[in-house]
Amino acid sequence: MTALEIRLRIIFTNPKQFRCFHPSQSSIQNPNTMEPEQQLSQETSKKAAKKEAAKAEKLRRRQEAAAASNAASGVAGVSIEELDPLAANYGDIPIKDIQSSVVSGQVWTTVSSLTDELKDQTVLIRGRAQAIRAVGKKMAFLTVREKGFTVQCVLTVAPDLVSTQMVKYATAISKESFVDIEGVVTVPPEAIKGASQQVEVQVRKIHCVNRAATVLPINVEDASRSEVEIEKALEAGEQLVRVNQDTRLNYRILDMRTPANQGIFRLECQVSNLFRQFLLNEDFVEINTPKLTAGTSEGGAAVFKLEYKKQPACLAQSPQLHKQMAICGDFGCVFIVGPVFRAEDSYTHRHLCEFTGLDAEFEIKEHYSEVMDIVDRLFVGMFDKLNERCQKELEAIGKQYPFQPLKYLRKTLRLTFEEGIQMLKDAGVEVDPLGDLNTETERTLGKLVLEKYGTEFYILHRYPLAVRPFYTMPCPDNDAYSNSFDVFIRGEEIISGAQRVHVPELLESRAKECGIDVKTISTYIDSFRYGAPPHGGFGVGLERVVMLFCALDNIRKTSLFPRDPRRLEP
Amino acid sequence: MTALEIRLRIIFTNPKQFRCFHPSQSSIQNPNTMEPEQQLSQETSKKAAKKEAAKAEKLRRRQEAAAASNAASGVAGVSIEELDPLAANYGDIPIKDIQSSVVSGQVWTTVSSLTDELKDQTVLIRGRAQAIRAVGKKMAFLTVREKGFTVQCVLTVAPDLVSTQMVKYATAISKESFVDIEGVVTVPPEAIKGASQQVEVQVRKIHCVNRAATVLPINVEDASRSEVEIEKALEAGEQLVRVNQDTRLNYRILDMRTPANQGIFRLECQVSNLFRQFLLNEDFVEINTPKLTAGTSEGGAAVFKLEYKKQPACLAQSPQLHKQMAICGDFGCVFIVGPVFRAEDSYTHRHLCEFTGLDAEFEIKEHYSEVMDIVDRLFVGMFDKLNERCQKELEAIGKQYPFQPLKYLRKTLRLTFEEGIQMLKDAGVEVDPLGDLNTETERTLGKLVLEKYGTEFYILHRYPLAVRPFYTMPCPDNDAYSNSFDVFIRGEEIISGAQRVHVPELLESRAKECGIDVKTISTYIDSFRYGAPPHGGFGVGLERVVMLFCALDNIRKTSLFPRDPRRLEP
Repeated sequence: MTALEIRLRIIFTNPKQFRCFHPSQSSIQNPNTMEPEQQLSQETSKKAAKKEAAKAEKLRRRQEAAAASNAASGVAGVSIEELDPLAANYGDIPIKDIQSSVVSGQVWTTVSSLTDELKDQTVLIRGRAQAIRAVGKKMAFLTVREKGFTVQCVLTVAPDLVSTQMVKYATAISKESFVDIEGVVTVPPEAIKGASQQVEVQVRKIHCVNRAATVLPINVEDASRSEVEIEKALEAGEQLVRVNQDTRLNYRILDMRTPANQGIFRLECQVSNLFRQFLLNEDFVEINTPKLTAGTSEGGAAVFKLEYKKQPACLAQSPQLHKQMAICGDFGCVFIVGPVFRAEDSYTHRHLCEFTGLDAEFEIKEHYSEVMDIVDRLFVGMFDKLNERCQKELEAIGKQYPFQPLKYLRKTLRLTFEEGIQMLKDAGVEVDPLGDLNTETERTLGKLVLEKYGTEFYILHRYPLAVRPFYTMPCPDNDAYSNSFDVFIRGEEIISGAQRVHVPELLESRAKECGIDVKTISTYIDSFRYGAPPHGGFGVGLERVVMLFCALDNIRKTSLFPRDPRRLEP
Repeated sequence: MTALEIRLRIIFTNPKQFRCFHPSQSSIQNPNTMEPEQQLSQETSKKAAKKEAAKAEKLRRRQEAAAASNAASGVAGVSIEELDPLAANYGDIPIKDIQSSVVSGQVWTTVSSLTDELKDQTVLIRGRAQAIRAVGKKMAFLTVREKGFTVQCVLTVAPDLVSTQMVKYATAISKESFVDIEGVVTVPPEAIKGASQQVEVQVRKIHCVNRAATVLPINVEDASRSEVEIEKALEAGEQLVRVNQDTRLNYRILDMRTPANQGIFRLECQVSNLFRQFLLNEDFVEINTPKLTAGTSEGGAAVFKLEYKKQPACLAQSPQLHKQMAICGDFGCVFIVGPVFRAEDSYTHRHLCEFTGLDAEFEIKEHYSEVMDIVDRLFVGMFDKLNERCQKELEAIGKQYPFQPLKYLRKTLRLTFEEGIQMLKDAGVEVDPLGDLNTETERTLGKLVLEKYGTEFYILHRYPLAVRPFYTMPCPDNDAYSNSFDVFIRGEEIISGAQRVHVPELLESRAKECGIDVKTISTYIDSFRYGAPPHGGFGVGLERVVMLFCALDNIRKTSLFPRDPRRLEP
């Protein structure tokens, strides 16, 4: 295509058309003119030719788009004088070029890998235009973000490299749009404050891949701000935007993009991965248990009911019954990672209607301490590895939500429930020695334990039988207590575990004592009639582990799309 | 306790009481006689004393139980003459001893590790009494099974080692009961046919941990038999029991115990583990998406509806919408392993109402071939590792359900849908060139591909747009086709994937064209308004991968607790 042809196209082209996407509209190559026989014969040469044609077509479209950008940047029509010879270096990429037209072989560099090692090299990056700032008409700064990492890109007008039209084009890009930037890596003498990467990219080409709406419901920079920053600014007389929890969740797609949230969910991924890898190394089998169940799950209230092919059904409140059945089925040691459903009306900082359960169950030989041993090794190892491997993530989280690293011992502290009650009593806290602890008392005990033993992670065991589920094994010496335990981080419960009742007669009588209609769980109880080993296990709330490891104040911060009694969207 | 004391206890003890479990009933140490102050002072010495007392108590109970076993083996009452001086070496373990009374420090050896390297060593094993065979009154063989591995245990009457009463006790143990056996490992000169381990255990002690009911609904040995064995026996005039699919599933707890099923679910665990590890290595983030959603999931029929806190809700048919939203939220590459729900009325060999989805979604730069590239490397690597690491499992599965190893190429074959249609046409199969393939046609094409290209694993891409979901990106050159693909194993579909529409206007119009009420998916569509990268992804059915890798005939064989239109239990 000659320069004249380009000019003619500009005059006859509505620039908006280049954001028009329907493939048939802007298709140049008419498939009807191609002979189908030809398509099947001589495959290789045809493919090569096709690739060439596609490349040529792509170039043509880029030029066309660039020309259109020129046109768009003019106020009314485009004069020949305004035509920019560098037009092909910027503009919106036509949809066809990202609709699987061609495999160009181009290589994109990730933003996180932009370091001074790449000094003077030309790189191609794709990311979001997080912030754009013009300095007069001849310079602009553009912060590009990819997966929470940011780099400062600089446009400076220079002959044969960057035109004023290009700077104008760049500064008009809406925030959060996706851009492809080609440029040269430079290392500025001073530290860069507004970006994670300590290099700059001197822009040579900039193309918009896909534009964001010009008005966004929340600004990612606002959502990334810490309370400390907001308060400091306020002291200095500046009122910064504070994005509240509900707004964040309503526009989770935008909120998710903050460095802290990128860190939180990458950390969460590591928690479940470390849980899995530890147990797989210990010869556990990961199984999948059904979430749709007949009857009423574990017999309690707070289940979501539904109709299943004209039968009454409900969503499993936990994989408890099925994981025990798998133990009766000879798997020895199993674990499950999956959603659990609680129709509770709790609207607290630590309850969700749907969360991710990390569940383990296994044969034990003699004592529920075997279960606590696994929990101890698993979590101490996990905390070590999180601190070691997730430094970047923890840093990003801490920057917005400052916290102290978790204090834990090499060998996890174990206190009996009675010992815990005594500590509370000694501190003047009145508690029912055979009742459950409430959130407040748990926190107080957490503080007492931290003072006395120097740990924020400990196990409380031998809980009163009355406050545990029917399948919990009573203590051998005193059936007011049970072979069970809870585990706490920073004074809040994250794990419940126990030895289970493996004798069907006892299981049945315990269920009855707990007011459960045994008919609704008969397949479960029957499982123990065909020979069952002594066994135990535990369940962990994934979101709670992450929340408490990072001392976050609300479980909604660690659930990607939280579900609570009032929230079913997005 | 002296011999006299034991004798006296026998006379006054009802042997059945030792299977009685309620802790308060057989508790000797009365907690009321203990002083609480004492419990808290001098912790260490108290603990040591307690441990000693518990050990002594345990020994006492074992002797008591052994004596009771003696009593039980007598016909009417026990005379002093019948008293066996070896009584402590066998009997039922009282519930208290496995109710967390004591940590004995004993070490159990796993059945799978019993090899000739342990010759002449004394081992303690715990497993199920799979089969018990008496040879006269002086000898018995007992096959003990643990996690699908079996070992032959031998009782031979010998002075000071094994008494006739002990043989009698052993032969009366019900099948599938859990036993603790202590004995010496010997290596017989000839191969052992009836057990996986090629050593024997010469029994010195045998204690029943927990008894199974004497009559079982299905026999694990029957359930373990292959069709070939049944037919061979029939030819020889012997009618063996054949356990049908529905009976197996009704008593899944027993069916699960067969070596083939132990293999299948261990293999399944490896499939999801390999899926995960591959993607984690490629910098993907595992996320958890909600299963409870507002609206109607992907807008189709076949959703399970429920009431969520007085709002209409449904169970997600896949994590499709939320995984794309996570891409709009900057995670770059994500995956999800979790349950998906389909309220379809399909009662076929390959449909379930709840199954495990392995889902991936990620930014692409230009072309949906980037998605196929990941699928290719992921699955070829997975098949390699399954064949390498899961030999024992594959052998166990093949023994009951014989199959040929999957044929696959180093670089996965890719055919366009048009090429596939042409192959079918050439073979005389009439198909709609723009319609979907049915199960039968897919199988035929699988056979043709195997003949022509020598692979049972291939990708078919550029599907007609009309047969794909609304969020599928149309082809750039012909919008009758789409940037999508399916992947087949042995002629059956296991994966669907595509480039997705990342432009909100096109997404909205495509949804409308597909008859979807866009209001019900407005949060999803809005996600693309705030800047969305080109992206693609795929979804895999875990149970299908395992079924087809092992050429099994029914997906219910690879779901631990299958859910189909007629089955919601166990």
